[in-house]
Amino acid sequence: MTRVRIDLFASLDGYTSAGQAPDNPMGADWGRLTTAYAATRTFHERVLGDTSGAGTTGVDDSYVAAHFEGIGAEIMGAAMFGLHTFPDDPDWKGWWGDQPPFGTPVYVLTHTAPRPSLPMPGGTTFHFRSTAIEDVLAEATEAAGGLDVRVGGGVSTARDFLRAGLVDHLHLMIAPILLGRGTRLWDDLRGLDLTHKVTTEVAESGTIHVTFTR
Amino acid sequence: MTRVRIDLFASLDGYTSAGQAPDNPMGADWGRLTTAYAATRTFHERVLGDTSGAGTTGVDDSYVAAHFEGIGAEIMGAAMFGLHTFPDDPDWKGWWGDQPPFGTPVYVLTHTAPRPSLPMPGGTTFHFRSTAIEDVLAEATEAAGGLDVRVGGGVSTARDFLRAGLVDHLHLMIAPILLGRGTRLWDDLRGLDLTHKVTTEVAESGTIHVTFTR
Repeated sequence: MTRVRIDLFASLDGYTSAGQAPDNPMGADWGRLTTAYAATRTFHERVLGDTSGAGTTGVDDSYVAAHFEGIGAEIMGAAMFGLHTFPDDPDWKGWWGDQPPFGTPVYVLTHTAPRPSLPMPGGTTFHFRSTAIEDVLAEATEAAGGLDVRVGGGVSTARDFLRAGLVDHLHLMIAPILLGRGTRLWDDLRGLDLTHKVTTEVAESGTIHVTFTR
Repeated sequence: MTRVRIDLFASLDGYTSAGQAPDNPMGADWGRLTTAYAATRTFHERVLGDTSGAGTTGVDDSYVAAHFEGIGAEIMGAAMFGLHTFPDDPDWKGWWGDQPPFGTPVYVLTHTAPRPSLPMPGGTTFHFRSTAIEDVLAEATEAAGGLDVRVGGGVSTARDFLRAGLVDHLHLMIAPILLGRGTRLWDDLRGLDLTHKVTTEVAESGTIHVTFTR
């Protein structure tokens, strides 16, 4: 059965990101939040294309590998695609390069006029949708063909799905740092420990992995 | 060398307590925050006086046992002692019973008129102090005779010592629950990960143990 999955990064004090700016869309603290993620072998292989065997292979890597497994369709916000970043460039195809790493249909949520779908090398096709998230999720679920649907981000898109009660599996990768600023994770998750089962595990890096599953 | 130590309970969303009322000074959520603590063998032995061998003996218990080890003096707020709970009863000696579990000098912070010290069976003597926390800490440190000084609570007293940069070892016992209300832990700890070394560990109960040590 298709599950709706989200992975988020957070700090120990519950911030998911901070310091975003037009020239730094992930935010100034992104590097500190994702240090353990970027150190894993799976990240090296799947994101950097580095097949040298570099990267950690412990608890962090097992969660990161799971993140990439069993996904049949992806949903992301317009900002994560980069839809409006270069509005005057008709050839702009988002942040994800000539061969995006998804290899599945990717549904990009947008409030602007419909655009034609954008097939890319490597099996990724971007679809642009301005309907309700429940409708987009229904379409993505059908496209996933029994595999899972991942809500990739950004944080505000993830929060929309969480608030709507649409998420079956939330994985938090909590870095043992205090940011003291940014978007608060927990405000939107009140009660999630009552509807979902919570698990906790610490990696060799000190990163705390928390999952909420129903 | 004497260290200043604090142990606190928190929820996953960073609340240390909630729902306090005059007839429930620990707060309505205290039981959920301290479930794993109260399940340990050390709690059974040291707090309940139950020497039957009942209680958990895993990771939670090792932290709880450490909490009781090596303490030469204790500091607590007036509310934790119960100083003002029964102001008309001249025989009131606080919440801690006929034989308080400390077995050390205990310095109770108060803004009211000085009271005589109160020696109790079992080696505990309560001293009442209205001077600055730095001065009380100096006196407690001398009394500790090379052992550690524990700031026992409540949360507001712990926060005073943390804000003043006086704490060498902070241990958080984070229950995998979301409270959504209460006193926020992290607001006062900004930057603590820069001055202290952070460790993280998960117990069999799912409780996350975080320590900040310098």
